[in-house]
Amino acid sequence: MMGGVLAGMRVVESSAFVAVPLAGMTLAQMGADVIRFDLPTGGMDHQRWPITAQGKSLFWAGLNKGKRSIAINVKTPRGREIASEIICAPGEDAGLFITNLAVKGWTDHLSLAKKRTDICTVTLRGDRMGRPAVDYTVNPSVGFPDATGPVDGSEPVAHVLPAWDCIAGNMVVSGLLAAERHRLRRGHGQGVDLTLKDVAAAMLGNLGIIGDVAMNGESRAKAGNALYGAYGQDFLCRDGRRVMVIGLTVRQWRNLVKVTQTEGEMDRLARSLGVDLAEEGARWHARDQITKVLVPWFAARDLDMVASAFDAGGVTWSVFRNFREALAQDPDLSQQNPMFQSLHQPGIGRYLTPGSPFDFSDLARQDPRPAPVLGQHTEEILADVAGLPDSEIASLFDAGVVTQPGQAIRLAS
Amino acid sequence: MMGGVLAGMRVVESSAFVAVPLAGMTLAQMGADVIRFDLPTGGMDHQRWPITAQGKSLFWAGLNKGKRSIAINVKTPRGREIASEIICAPGEDAGLFITNLAVKGWTDHLSLAKKRTDICTVTLRGDRMGRPAVDYTVNPSVGFPDATGPVDGSEPVAHVLPAWDCIAGNMVVSGLLAAERHRLRRGHGQGVDLTLKDVAAAMLGNLGIIGDVAMNGESRAKAGNALYGAYGQDFLCRDGRRVMVIGLTVRQWRNLVKVTQTEGEMDRLARSLGVDLAEEGARWHARDQITKVLVPWFAARDLDMVASAFDAGGVTWSVFRNFREALAQDPDLSQQNPMFQSLHQPGIGRYLTPGSPFDFSDLARQDPRPAPVLGQHTEEILADVAGLPDSEIASLFDAGVVTQPGQAIRLAS
Repeated sequence: MMGGVLAGMRVVESSAFVAVPLAGMTLAQMGADVIRFDLPTGGMDHQRWPITAQGKSLFWAGLNKGKRSIAINVKTPRGREIASEIICAPGEDAGLFITNLAVKGWTDHLSLAKKRTDICTVTLRGDRMGRPAVDYTVNPSVGFPDATGPVDGSEPVAHVLPAWDCIAGNMVVSGLLAAERHRLRRGHGQGVDLTLKDVAAAMLGNLGIIGDVAMNGESRAKAGNALYGAYGQDFLCRDGRRVMVIGLTVRQWRNLVKVTQTEGEMDRLARSLGVDLAEEGARWHARDQITKVLVPWFAARDLDMVASAFDAGGVTWSVFRNFREALAQDPDLSQQNPMFQSLHQPGIGRYLTPGSPFDFSDLARQDPRPAPVLGQHTEEILADVAGLPDSEIASLFDAGVVTQPGQAIRLAS
Repeated sequence: MMGGVLAGMRVVESSAFVAVPLAGMTLAQMGADVIRFDLPTGGMDHQRWPITAQGKSLFWAGLNKGKRSIAINVKTPRGREIASEIICAPGEDAGLFITNLAVKGWTDHLSLAKKRTDICTVTLRGDRMGRPAVDYTVNPSVGFPDATGPVDGSEPVAHVLPAWDCIAGNMVVSGLLAAERHRLRRGHGQGVDLTLKDVAAAMLGNLGIIGDVAMNGESRAKAGNALYGAYGQDFLCRDGRRVMVIGLTVRQWRNLVKVTQTEGEMDRLARSLGVDLAEEGARWHARDQITKVLVPWFAARDLDMVASAFDAGGVTWSVFRNFREALAQDPDLSQQNPMFQSLHQPGIGRYLTPGSPFDFSDLARQDPRPAPVLGQHTEEILADVAGLPDSEIASLFDAGVVTQPGQAIRLAS
C-alpha cells in the first residue's frame, strides 16, 4: 500500500496488548495491508492505559496505527466463519495471520490450514506449557528485576518498558517474513510458534548471563546505573541535571578522560591499583574510584557546559529526562525528526506520532497513519476481502454479527 | 544450512556489541549462512563481559552462535578489498549485509552497491545526526529510568537488559528480510537505515507515552513494581519468597480475587470508593487499597501453597528469582525445554545454550550451535565465498592480512 517495502502483502491479526499489535503495526508501517479483527465491544486492550480524560486509549491508538479494523462478533458461528474467510482469503501475498489469541479448533494453525493449505501463521503464547504469561511475570521469573536498581537496594525493580513484548513483537514480524519467504520458494505454508517466556530465556543465554552462572557461579548483583563490565556512570551537574557518561570502548574511555582533564589522576589511580584502565574489566573493578575522580568535574559545571565539552570531545553521553522533558527538549522527539508528524488521531486529537524507524533507500519514507476507529473498515473488508454481496453485508449488520462506527448513518449512505 | 527456514541465504556481518550481532545470530539460527568478519585482534566486543576466569567472553560466545568467523585485517587495503568481495559475492540469496560499523567509502551502502548493484544492506547507527549512542545513553534520554523504581524513589533507575539493543537487533532482521523480499520481486537492492535512538523514540509513541504527555500533560511517575494502568503487584510470601500477581484483564482480576477469597472485602472496597473494580482504571487508582486487602493472604502462606492455589485457579503470576535461582529452579531454563541443549563452547566449556525461540511447523527445530573461535572459518570463506586460489590464500596468511586460530598447524594440514 502506498509504496512501502511490503506493498501488496496482506496480514490478518487477532491480538491484544503489546507484542502482536506491535508486530502488525510494524508490518503496516512497512506498507502491508494489516487487518485487525476485534469484538464489537473491542478487544481486551481497547481501554488500556494510558487513556485520555474522555477514556480513549492512547495505548490502543499507538499500537494500531495504519491498520484496518473490522468489528466482528466471533462469539457467533457466522462471525467465526467470516473471520476465517478473511484470514484465508486468496491472494499470493495473503494468507498470513499473526495472533496471541489462538483458539483451538478455530484460529490455531491446523484449523486455518484446512481452509487455506498454504497459510502462514505466527502464534505467540505465554510459555511452552500453555500457561498465561505477560511481560510483568516473565521478567521477574528470569531474574532481571533482582539485578536492577541501586547497589544498596534490597528489593527487585521491574522495568517500565515492556521489553519482552517489544522484542517478541519484532520477532513475530521476522518469523512471518521468514515463513512467507519459505512459502514463496517451496509453495507451502506453515505455523510458527513462539512464546514470550522462551524469548526471555533465550536472551538470558544470548547475553552471556547463563554462561556467567554456569562458569562463574555468578548471579549479577545490582550495580545502580553503572554500565556493566566496563565503565559508564551517571553524574550530577552543578545545576542538578543528571547525565550518563560512557567509557565502554577504549576510544570512549580516552575521550572521557581527555575532556575531563583527568589523565594525571587516572594514571595515578591505575598505578596505585596496579591495573591498566585501557582494559574494560579493570575499569569495571575500579568504577567507584574512577567515579570519585570524575565527580568534581561535573559538580563544577552546568549541563550546558558539560554538553558542549562532551560533544566537542567526542564523548558518548546523554542527559536524563522524564517523559515530559524528553518531549519538550529532545529534537529527536519532534517534527525535526522526519520519522515524526503531528497527526490527528480520531476521537483523541492531534499529537506527535511516529512512523516507522526504518528508512529504505529505494522507497519514499512512509508517513505515519492514524489508528482506525474500532470497526472503521468493517464494510469494505467484508466486500473486498471476504467478497460478500451487499445484501449479505446488510443482513450481517442487521443481525449484529458485524458493526461499524455510526453504523445506521453509514449504511444508509 | 541444515534445513532452517532461511537455508541458502548468506548474510555478511560487520558488527560489535549487542544489536547487530544479535541480528546475525537470529538469522543464523533460522538457517542462514552468516559470516562475521573481525580484525585478527577481535572486534570491540571480543572481550565484553561477562567473561570466564580465563578471560574468555561469555557475551561474545552468546551473541555469535552458529556464525562463521573470518579474521581479516581491514586496516589494510587488501583486507578491505577481500572483505568487500565477501560481502558482494554472487548468489541469488547472497549480497546481504548488516552492520553497526559502516565506514564511509567502504562499507556504506553506496560503496558496496558499486560492487554489487542489487546488494541489500541494513545499517544501524546511534542517532539520526550520526552521533554515537548506546543503549545506556538512549534509555535515560527518552525518560524510562525516571519512571522506574520505588514509588518514593528520587533517583532514576536504568534497566539492566539492553532492551533497545535487543529490539533494534530484531528490527535489523525484519528490515533485511523485507528488503530481500522486495529485491526478489523488483530485482534491485537497497540500503536500510535505522538508528537506536529512533527505535526508542518510536516506541515512546507506540506505547501511548507521547500521547499521554501531549493530551494529559502527564509524565508517568514511579510506581514500583505495580502494573501500570490496571492491577498487578508484588507480594511477600510467608517464607520470604516474592511473587508477582496480575489483574490486567477482567478474567485475571476475578481469578485473583476468587483464589484469595477476597470477594467480600473487594466488594466493600469498591462500594466505599464508589467504583467498579472490573474497570481497569478503577483498579489502578485503588491499587494501594487492593494490595492492603491481599497482603495478609500471602503473608499466611509459603510459596508452594501460593503456587498450587494460583495454578489451580488460573491466576497469572510468577515468582521473583535472581539469575542463579532462575537457572537452578525454572524448567524453562533447562534441557526440559527443547530450545536448550548443553553445548560445548570451544575455549569456555559446556553449558546450557539456547537455540532459536522460533518453532517452524514445517521444519525440524534447529539445534543450537556454538559460536566460532575468532577466525575459525577464515580459510574456507576465502576459498568458497571469495573464490581465491590456494596460493593467494597462503600468501594472505603469510602477510598477516588474514589469520586463523593455530594458524601454522592448520595451514600445514
